[in-house]
Amino acid sequence: MTSPSAPFSVLCEPGFNPHQLNKYATLMTCGNGYLGIRGGHEEAYTDQVRGMFVAGFYHRATPDEVTELVNLPDITGCKIEFGNTPFSLLAGKLLSYRREFHPELGELCRELIWQSPEGGLFSLKSARFVARAPQQLVAATLTLTALDQETPLRLTTGIDATQTNSGRQHLTEASVRVMHQHTLQGCYRTPEGDMALMISSHCRLSSDDARISYAAKNRQLNQQFSTTLRVGVPLTLEKISWVDVCLPGDAEPENWDEHCLAQLAPQVEQGYAALRAASLQQWQRWWPQARVEVGSSDPFDQLALDMSAYHLAAMTPAHDERCSVAAKGLTGEGYKGHVFWDTDIFILPYHLLTRPETARALLRYRYHRLPQAQQKAARCGYEGALFPWESAFTGDEETPAFGLINIRTGLRQPVASALAEHHLVADIAYAAVGYLQATGDAQFQATETQALLKACALFWLSRTTEVNGRLELHDVIGPDEYTEHINNNAYTNYLAHYCVAQALHYLPDTPEHEDVHTRGRDFLARCVLPQPDNERVIPQDDSFFSKPTIDLTRYQAKAGTQSILLDYSRAEVNEMQILKQADLIMLFFLLPSLFSREVQRANLDYYLPRTIHDSSLSKAIYAIVACRNGMADLAWPLYREAMAIDLGPEPHSCDDGIHAAATGAIWLGAIMGFAGLEYQEGQLVLSPRLPPHWKTLRFPLCWRGEQLQVSISHQQLQIEKANDAPLSICVHGTLHSFTRRLVLALEH
Amino acid sequence: MTSPSAPFSVLCEPGFNPHQLNKYATLMTCGNGYLGIRGGHEEAYTDQVRGMFVAGFYHRATPDEVTELVNLPDITGCKIEFGNTPFSLLAGKLLSYRREFHPELGELCRELIWQSPEGGLFSLKSARFVARAPQQLVAATLTLTALDQETPLRLTTGIDATQTNSGRQHLTEASVRVMHQHTLQGCYRTPEGDMALMISSHCRLSSDDARISYAAKNRQLNQQFSTTLRVGVPLTLEKISWVDVCLPGDAEPENWDEHCLAQLAPQVEQGYAALRAASLQQWQRWWPQARVEVGSSDPFDQLALDMSAYHLAAMTPAHDERCSVAAKGLTGEGYKGHVFWDTDIFILPYHLLTRPETARALLRYRYHRLPQAQQKAARCGYEGALFPWESAFTGDEETPAFGLINIRTGLRQPVASALAEHHLVADIAYAAVGYLQATGDAQFQATETQALLKACALFWLSRTTEVNGRLELHDVIGPDEYTEHINNNAYTNYLAHYCVAQALHYLPDTPEHEDVHTRGRDFLARCVLPQPDNERVIPQDDSFFSKPTIDLTRYQAKAGTQSILLDYSRAEVNEMQILKQADLIMLFFLLPSLFSREVQRANLDYYLPRTIHDSSLSKAIYAIVACRNGMADLAWPLYREAMAIDLGPEPHSCDDGIHAAATGAIWLGAIMGFAGLEYQEGQLVLSPRLPPHWKTLRFPLCWRGEQLQVSISHQQLQIEKANDAPLSICVHGTLHSFTRRLVLALEH
Repeated sequence: MTSPSAPFSVLCEPGFNPHQLNKYATLMTCGNGYLGIRGGHEEAYTDQVRGMFVAGFYHRATPDEVTELVNLPDITGCKIEFGNTPFSLLAGKLLSYRREFHPELGELCRELIWQSPEGGLFSLKSARFVARAPQQLVAATLTLTALDQETPLRLTTGIDATQTNSGRQHLTEASVRVMHQHTLQGCYRTPEGDMALMISSHCRLSSDDARISYAAKNRQLNQQFSTTLRVGVPLTLEKISWVDVCLPGDAEPENWDEHCLAQLAPQVEQGYAALRAASLQQWQRWWPQARVEVGSSDPFDQLALDMSAYHLAAMTPAHDERCSVAAKGLTGEGYKGHVFWDTDIFILPYHLLTRPETARALLRYRYHRLPQAQQKAARCGYEGALFPWESAFTGDEETPAFGLINIRTGLRQPVASALAEHHLVADIAYAAVGYLQATGDAQFQATETQALLKACALFWLSRTTEVNGRLELHDVIGPDEYTEHINNNAYTNYLAHYCVAQALHYLPDTPEHEDVHTRGRDFLARCVLPQPDNERVIPQDDSFFSKPTIDLTRYQAKAGTQSILLDYSRAEVNEMQILKQADLIMLFFLLPSLFSREVQRANLDYYLPRTIHDSSLSKAIYAIVACRNGMADLAWPLYREAMAIDLGPEPHSCDDGIHAAATGAIWLGAIMGFAGLEYQEGQLVLSPRLPPHWKTLRFPLCWRGEQLQVSISHQQLQIEKANDAPLSICVHGTLHSFTRRLVLALEH
Repeated sequence: MTSPSAPFSVLCEPGFNPHQLNKYATLMTCGNGYLGIRGGHEEAYTDQVRGMFVAGFYHRATPDEVTELVNLPDITGCKIEFGNTPFSLLAGKLLSYRREFHPELGELCRELIWQSPEGGLFSLKSARFVARAPQQLVAATLTLTALDQETPLRLTTGIDATQTNSGRQHLTEASVRVMHQHTLQGCYRTPEGDMALMISSHCRLSSDDARISYAAKNRQLNQQFSTTLRVGVPLTLEKISWVDVCLPGDAEPENWDEHCLAQLAPQVEQGYAALRAASLQQWQRWWPQARVEVGSSDPFDQLALDMSAYHLAAMTPAHDERCSVAAKGLTGEGYKGHVFWDTDIFILPYHLLTRPETARALLRYRYHRLPQAQQKAARCGYEGALFPWESAFTGDEETPAFGLINIRTGLRQPVASALAEHHLVADIAYAAVGYLQATGDAQFQATETQALLKACALFWLSRTTEVNGRLELHDVIGPDEYTEHINNNAYTNYLAHYCVAQALHYLPDTPEHEDVHTRGRDFLARCVLPQPDNERVIPQDDSFFSKPTIDLTRYQAKAGTQSILLDYSRAEVNEMQILKQADLIMLFFLLPSLFSREVQRANLDYYLPRTIHDSSLSKAIYAIVACRNGMADLAWPLYREAMAIDLGPEPHSCDDGIHAAATGAIWLGAIMGFAGLEYQEGQLVLSPRLPPHWKTLRFPLCWRGEQLQVSISHQQLQIEKANDAPLSICVHGTLHSFTRRLVLALEH
């Protein structure tokens, strides 16, 4: 493409606000798929939750807890004392403040001028990033200047292992020491000893005349610098750290401590600025394959897309097939770092169409855990594979037993997802099929896809209940988690049907698979697929239409907060026509060709007012389905709200971590909604319908091994690629074939 | 006595100061020997460490950690939000502030007027106490008034189990629920399941129109009240809690949850004011047997004595012989709640001479743990009993392996106390003998004392090294912990000698004890007892005089902070004539009659300048010995500094808990220093030497089953008792006998 890229967006915190500490700590998380570090301030605040997470570093604190992604010892905190006054923005006076996150390279920067309660005027500048490579590298810098009076300064920073996951401790402090009179090093292990973490941190002060002392007490290893700030002379502290882990099964390097020091030393040598430049270069090589650019009259749209792309990279452990994407990425403790269907359905498509090898790794994460899924199925009395509703490192079921307090009984309400939210099995099969459509990866088809599809199909074959000669799926939970333990959830039944059909398609009709084929054909013939009624509305499940409706306006106004559970118990919500999130609409999103435009529109009209959107998986899906069905007036506002789930004005939008699926859905909305991309049936489809205020939409695509660049305006669609092999694409229902460049005029 | 008691002192915080949060949280701990709750503010501050501790509730987080007194889930925190503004004294403007602790009944009160950053004016009053009985009861009240504008108010409080010991978690959340739509109840267990905690908290708001909601998430069980503060209408929240535990070996009551609710209900019925009155009554019955009253020109002196008496009661688990007094009582995490010789030597005498049954319980704590002490002795190759340097519930050795970082090597320095600080064995024997002297408890003598003395003596008999026909004690650490691994520490040798001599005295010369008698006589004859040199100075140990001296002035100025270890490694300190604390002087304190006044004075002059007082066990002991030897100019300033160890101006004097031994030493200084009380040889001795600014000193004494009331002025000593049995007392070297009342004129 000849036109230059749009400048990168910058996320600015609107000002210091103690109510939004954790929202911005989440949004400003630095990460690289291996490591995530929340954007906490150097100084402490009571409500500020720090966090450092390494993909796959899960642990169960005690047998009756669930496994969780461990909140590792903190290296970002720094106590700053001017004279006897600790620096805190809650005290004194803030004369200027600017805090920014640069998704271009994942750098968090702060710059402020502060007057202490005693009157001294100081400037503070700090910055921090996690390197794109080497992934273990974390660099931070802090510069302080006294603006009007010489002031004694004390800086205390180090490795703080008092960090817990909301009070649950996972690590023992195996050793802490000061290596070579310079580098703090802490080694931490899980009590069982099968995982370890080695943090090495080197601090350098720009002044030589500081008094330095070290302390190790109460799980904190600290270095303290005492010096004097002279007026107008900036003092800089650079802290370069190396965060290395051994996951279960990893062999611990010999002399690991010295090994880490040897890795750290050349990085320290370079210093913050050079390390930053090197990391930026790595990011700059990556962006052209990832970035979606919109020519929008509202800069927020590009910001949301840039933040989405950055966070999709930062959350995805593309380097290690033993891990997958957590529901909050590596940005917070929420959902305990577990992997849900979010990954397979909301996040995987982005990787599939930009870096398919990452999608492959995510599917292989599922593939490696087939044995555990087969064990769970067997335990529950089924055949095939029943993947855990919440998955972590081992592939065992990790869903917590209890959720919120029941407002009637005072008891915590059991979480039923692990018992009945079985659509996940079809979702994974759907993702595996999608991967084949977009890549044509024959090797994967012959092994992973066949194994996954067979195991998933077998599950559904054994999951049925025969009623009057038809096969029904009883006692399930569909995507809508406010409607539990129902029969023949339309989403589940259609997806199960699709799963079995695809298994029959991909599994060779050999004696080895004869049983699946025979039973599968019977299943496809007899499986109940709920049909539209006279108003073209498909019942979400057998009993849904029989339930009463209430006005949900006030709960929709607080979407995402589950405020309805303050008025009704879960059991009561279950007995009304209340959707937490897209359910039937989710089915339209995944299998659009099965339903006519009229049916889709009728159901959108019916279900939208009944949906609270208390799940972040909802609005973007409604937006995409609305867009595809020409309901532009509905599509844009829903998409706009979906983009704002984390980034919007709500001060606690994402305190305990970003909504990873919603982050993926920002990409989905642009590409699968407004560009109208579909691929599930093996044909690349684009049906652009840009919102009026978007002049252009440009994005890279990786389709069957080829790198495409797509540019869309209201007038024109243009696709470029680098080689001469012909490619066919369906645009608004018409098939086009081209080699290097396709330019099509679009009708209005 | 006819004269009325002095009014009770009140500890006032000089003003809100974020640097002193933890000092005052410690000093203002509410407790009753069973339960201790730190005096944290309702609102959170980053540096504020909350704490709730139950005596004996120890747990080891992981196998490589040491056992520690568990910091239990918090019930004191309350998030107060005026409109959207959280209440915090770091923001807005504090127009008036008064925070007091009343040792009379252990009540913490706060009263303030605060202007929020938005300008609204509010008054806040709060109070809290832990009942003297029933010991499980905690009552708190909080009253808020809007002074100038109607304001929405949100109060959130409950049971917060994110609490850890510096990041170490000991409890799993076994169940949390809201009982009977009213009472929060959390049950917490150690992972091994041998200990449990049941907290039940009932909140009542004075207004009926609040919206109430409950939440249980991330180890927090909370109740939230949303209402509106009307101008001038006070709103009161009363929170009454019941904190019950099952220690190892306790049978868990059937329906424990309901049982606790049943205990709580009648307390809730009464409300804060009535509960307070009832607890006060209990305290008022106790004070006459405990209180030391001084007619001093400085009210600080009475404050220190009242705080000492309160905390000595609050720290001592008199109700349960399975526990003893922790080095920080129940006020903080410091020293991990372990029991040291502090209890036997610094705290026990107070109980012995006021409530001897408590001293008996503390000795029986040691007696019950003889088997573990015998096992430790055997493991170390000795006979008899080697008590653990740090003890907790089981009586096993609990001393942590490592202390501070070595400033030369960067490694944490090993803690040698458990290996060599063996004087503890003689200290316990000394305390057991003292108990007999003061009580004449024949039953105890026949069982516990004999068993303890025999086991302790056997240890010393096996601990010797023969050198040129004499028996030496090699490789020990005396009370002075800055001098490690030395031979023939005078304190240790004399105390060991005393221990063996007392064993021979109390053990009948029967065949059963023949071996001890034979070997004991030989030990007494040949044991090295270091003698004064030409300057009458006794060497602290064999090598002490050969070491160099340095000027310690700057370290003495920072006594208590171990600042010398920032300049020298422990190994280097060991090679100089540097005392952390009283060592030989400690010996004079315990066995004064063995040493002439001239020798005592010469050694005081020699060792004082070589002592940093980095231990809180030092200054009061120097003061007492100085006082007894007529060195009044030295005695008072040292005692004044000893009283100020926790209560003085140092902002971090006792962040991680009170100095329990120093608290005991405040009593020791008054009674054994200025009143000149001695009792070790079976004769009650008083040799009053009041400081000039003390007009009177009055205190109760329990001596051999009789309740005495002692009143001392510069002119006169008066003792009263209630029965006609004659009692002999030695005053300034002269023996007096009396029945009900003794009045003696004192010479100047």
